[in-house]
Amino acid sequence: MEFKYNIRELKFILKEWLPTDEVLQYDRFKDYLDMSSIDPLLQEAYKIAKEIVNPINAQGDKIGNKFENGVVTPPPGYKEVYRFLQQNGWGSSAECVELEEGLPLIIFKAINELNSAACPAVASNVKLTTGVANLLIKFGKEEIKKRFLPKLLNGDWQGTMCLTEPNAGSDVGDAITRSYPTDDPMIYKIKGSKMFISAGDTGCCENTIHMVLARPQGGAAGSSGLGLYIVPKLWVEEDGTMIKGNDVITIGLEEKMGLHGSATTMLNFGENDECYGIMLGAAPDEKGRSKGLAMMFHMMNESRIGTGHNANSQASAAYSFASQYATERIQGRPFGQSKGERVELVKHTDIKRMLLDMKARTEGIRAMIFKGYYLLDVAENSGDKEKAKKFKGIAEIFTPLVKCYGSETAAILTAEAIQVLGGVGYTKEYPVEQYMRDSKILTIWEGTSFIQANDLVGRKFRMEDGVPFANWMALIKDFIYQDRKASVLEKEFSLLKKAYQCVEEVKSLYDSWYENFNEKKELIPLYALRTLFVCSQVQVAECLMEQALIAQKKISELPEDHYDLNYYKGKIASAKYYVNNILPNAIMLATIIKNADQSVLDCPEEALIIS
Amino acid sequence: MEFKYNIRELKFILKEWLPTDEVLQYDRFKDYLDMSSIDPLLQEAYKIAKEIVNPINAQGDKIGNKFENGVVTPPPGYKEVYRFLQQNGWGSSAECVELEEGLPLIIFKAINELNSAACPAVASNVKLTTGVANLLIKFGKEEIKKRFLPKLLNGDWQGTMCLTEPNAGSDVGDAITRSYPTDDPMIYKIKGSKMFISAGDTGCCENTIHMVLARPQGGAAGSSGLGLYIVPKLWVEEDGTMIKGNDVITIGLEEKMGLHGSATTMLNFGENDECYGIMLGAAPDEKGRSKGLAMMFHMMNESRIGTGHNANSQASAAYSFASQYATERIQGRPFGQSKGERVELVKHTDIKRMLLDMKARTEGIRAMIFKGYYLLDVAENSGDKEKAKKFKGIAEIFTPLVKCYGSETAAILTAEAIQVLGGVGYTKEYPVEQYMRDSKILTIWEGTSFIQANDLVGRKFRMEDGVPFANWMALIKDFIYQDRKASVLEKEFSLLKKAYQCVEEVKSLYDSWYENFNEKKELIPLYALRTLFVCSQVQVAECLMEQALIAQKKISELPEDHYDLNYYKGKIASAKYYVNNILPNAIMLATIIKNADQSVLDCPEEALIIS
Repeated sequence: MEFKYNIRELKFILKEWLPTDEVLQYDRFKDYLDMSSIDPLLQEAYKIAKEIVNPINAQGDKIGNKFENGVVTPPPGYKEVYRFLQQNGWGSSAECVELEEGLPLIIFKAINELNSAACPAVASNVKLTTGVANLLIKFGKEEIKKRFLPKLLNGDWQGTMCLTEPNAGSDVGDAITRSYPTDDPMIYKIKGSKMFISAGDTGCCENTIHMVLARPQGGAAGSSGLGLYIVPKLWVEEDGTMIKGNDVITIGLEEKMGLHGSATTMLNFGENDECYGIMLGAAPDEKGRSKGLAMMFHMMNESRIGTGHNANSQASAAYSFASQYATERIQGRPFGQSKGERVELVKHTDIKRMLLDMKARTEGIRAMIFKGYYLLDVAENSGDKEKAKKFKGIAEIFTPLVKCYGSETAAILTAEAIQVLGGVGYTKEYPVEQYMRDSKILTIWEGTSFIQANDLVGRKFRMEDGVPFANWMALIKDFIYQDRKASVLEKEFSLLKKAYQCVEEVKSLYDSWYENFNEKKELIPLYALRTLFVCSQVQVAECLMEQALIAQKKISELPEDHYDLNYYKGKIASAKYYVNNILPNAIMLATIIKNADQSVLDCPEEALIIS
Repeated sequence: MEFKYNIRELKFILKEWLPTDEVLQYDRFKDYLDMSSIDPLLQEAYKIAKEIVNPINAQGDKIGNKFENGVVTPPPGYKEVYRFLQQNGWGSSAECVELEEGLPLIIFKAINELNSAACPAVASNVKLTTGVANLLIKFGKEEIKKRFLPKLLNGDWQGTMCLTEPNAGSDVGDAITRSYPTDDPMIYKIKGSKMFISAGDTGCCENTIHMVLARPQGGAAGSSGLGLYIVPKLWVEEDGTMIKGNDVITIGLEEKMGLHGSATTMLNFGENDECYGIMLGAAPDEKGRSKGLAMMFHMMNESRIGTGHNANSQASAAYSFASQYATERIQGRPFGQSKGERVELVKHTDIKRMLLDMKARTEGIRAMIFKGYYLLDVAENSGDKEKAKKFKGIAEIFTPLVKCYGSETAAILTAEAIQVLGGVGYTKEYPVEQYMRDSKILTIWEGTSFIQANDLVGRKFRMEDGVPFANWMALIKDFIYQDRKASVLEKEFSLLKKAYQCVEEVKSLYDSWYENFNEKKELIPLYALRTLFVCSQVQVAECLMEQALIAQKKISELPEDHYDLNYYKGKIASAKYYVNNILPNAIMLATIIKNADQSVLDCPEEALIIS
């Protein structure tokens, strides 16, 4: 099967739904981008995803990265494609904040979605370099930027984020990698082990620039004691030349369920006491506190939304293959017509149901994601500082929703794609099972689903006295209660109102749990994930209803034989399907949360031990 | 990590919950089995699963079956373990109906569960041989039984079921493999291709006995025209000796997402016109109708329940590993205690929630499964013919519920096990990701999830004028409405009643759709899967509540320091968790079904095509 992707949908988002023209008016973009740039950019990006990026995806899975005699060999094509994307403006340089050649997130991410869908592994390597470049742009001195950025951005070098250690995963504050001062106040010796480092040694680049979290001598305990260090695999002089190794040793690669194209690396820093890192940001304060993790978290909104986006792109690719198969494969007869002709799979109601399920959910989650990017574009670029601050706050609410709900849904939808194909979907001859395996990691990295949920109920509900969360709720409420004439979507609006009320109720309940913290505190984590689902489903439904209203207007305007009419009818179907078939989950979950069953707390731990 | 399994739970099912003593009183068992046989059998089976069967599981995944120069090489140990199980009474001979050494299903399946959990691939090879042996026992003449059974049962030979063809999967009636009469009225020439044949060539046995569906010349169209033929890979003479090949050629093996230990084979029969098969059952009637598929379906109740059981066993194994990890791994601090000591994962509320989720769902589904086996044991062995018939009918209702709900839930729970482990769960160093991959096929083979749902609403709802379904409903209703004194489970009984009413409502709705068939027929398949979920969740909840009542009684009787008290408290927790946290799905789904949204039907097919 051929890699196909729903470009029409991306155009709808950028040209018919979001206020893209507003974003393009910002100083950074107005002189060289306008609405007419969108179509050609998307067409070209699609061509590249199809012809250059997707062809390496299956062999990356099959062959994987090899590690022999300390050297990593990437699967065929990975080096070339990584460099192609970086060199031709389809990678980090187009995404980096503040760079002149940068695109607005809403546009860059539309392009990037195609590469994430076409080959998640190579797209994630690019993404890591972008993250490192963005850290250096935000927090590095001019000299540092000059030293590292050019080769990170042109594809010569790879960037990585080194947080996890054998002893510290989700609890990153327990990291034991150490840093020691040297004669140069900017340079520290680094010593420790890191694991699960994506792209930690890809074999695709001449150098790897690691951003390493480490605790300086005398550093505070926990995450506030961690500093952030630029640790190149080969040391880079101020003039950008590379000299000798920097005592960063690749110990091995993880064998994983999927994402075999991505080298998940175990690294030792300073095994021979000869590893040096350049401190990013300020030295520890008098209490031993550093801003290492805080700097990394500065990028977190975008990169967590990016992870949810990656998941949704993979689910969309799987949907696309399932749709192709279902419209081509002839099998069986429709329900109640056992004597009839054999038909395409899509003519079986349950297959069509699964396809619309995938369509509606991926479209809805994509809409939520792009609304999140739009909020970030405004926050980053708007001259209206108040609006920027407000939108940044709302984007903070979006972040855990997108990351968690996007990745958890991808797990369901990639499995559903296999189900559409049936037995062949389980084989490696068809691409869908790879998406199920590749996407599973996304509920774990960049903070597990629970960490997202905890971020929502533990932090986002109450940050800045609850103002951002209230702003987020108001955005939804304003849309729902807008005065509009009765429409074909009346039933759906009424369901959406009911579901929105659930958000208000659950939020109040959480407020009351915080007020009675000692008595109720265990309920906060217990219902966190389900609370996140309630908020996510309402947000997704709201986005789909916004889009459906646009579609409805178009349908009333277009002639009945217009080629695009089915597209808009499909948008209505997505909204109706989601609101009637998925959104009731939010209402059910709210009922469960309000019921506040305590069986998990009451269950003796011993009853969960198998001996 | 070590393979551990919850034997205590199997003992509870057999010794404290089900009327096992009633089954053991049947003529077939009463002379050589009694309640005291259960513990030693389970202990011995556990030892074998742990020490002999599980050790081959990971290497089967890693190495898989190799196919070179027409020869299949199994992964290390598969041959030995297959033979060990068959030769020592842990395989087909213990499961076969009507055999003297046979065990009741409820006991055999408790043993078998351990092997399915320990190594799904080898257990499924055994299972296929059992299926073939059972077909021969039910439908074969004495001579045929003598010729084939001994070596099938002693592990020398492997059995297979050959239904699927490149052109016919779920629509098995479209099979085009042909059979042609020869001079011997019992012997036919066979010609055609079969694919996805599990254990079609394992390299573990000296011969393979294929049960092949093929259409005789002049056979009716569709499934009623298919005959069933015994096609040995090496021809077997009447005295049981094997001679020459029988023109059955292995074309290749499928590369799959999981279950690599199982050889999924593409076979050509009669490529050189020299393939012979022995007809099972009668020759086609004057309308060209044969009973081939009907004979295979005769085994379907048990083998579909078996597939759901296999899925639940894998989910249970994944749960067991997750539980082990969570009780051993120290990470992070409990909610609200950021200054406290680091604790085991299980002390984090959300981890504990996931563990109880896995415990409750696997226990509940296991209970449903064993109730199904009990019904079959009575149906097969009871002298009370009326009861036998009634129970057989109820077992027919259980069949699609167990197959579909069991396998769909396993997909969720094996993913949840990965989530408990976090990043390491995604690696091949830990066994949980293999269970997620291995179990995914179970929503597809033996009839996809939709085929099960269609079986329920299209056939089982109305078969025998609806009597078996009414009997099934009555069984649940009788339990719920039994007069019992108010208990700690009051809230749960009230929820269960509400959910049970949903079953009645959905059933009535379906009745009305059938009454207005022309107008409503599309709704029947559209809501089939969700209807199956409603029924399944109510059945599972009912089983858990039955068990909880027993546990409650035990708790009131046991001294407070009794070693087994936590086990019973855990049973209460499972029931409460399931009813409060999972069963609300049934109520929600019923609401969705009654809402009967038509977006799937209204959506233009063109809107589902990605171009």
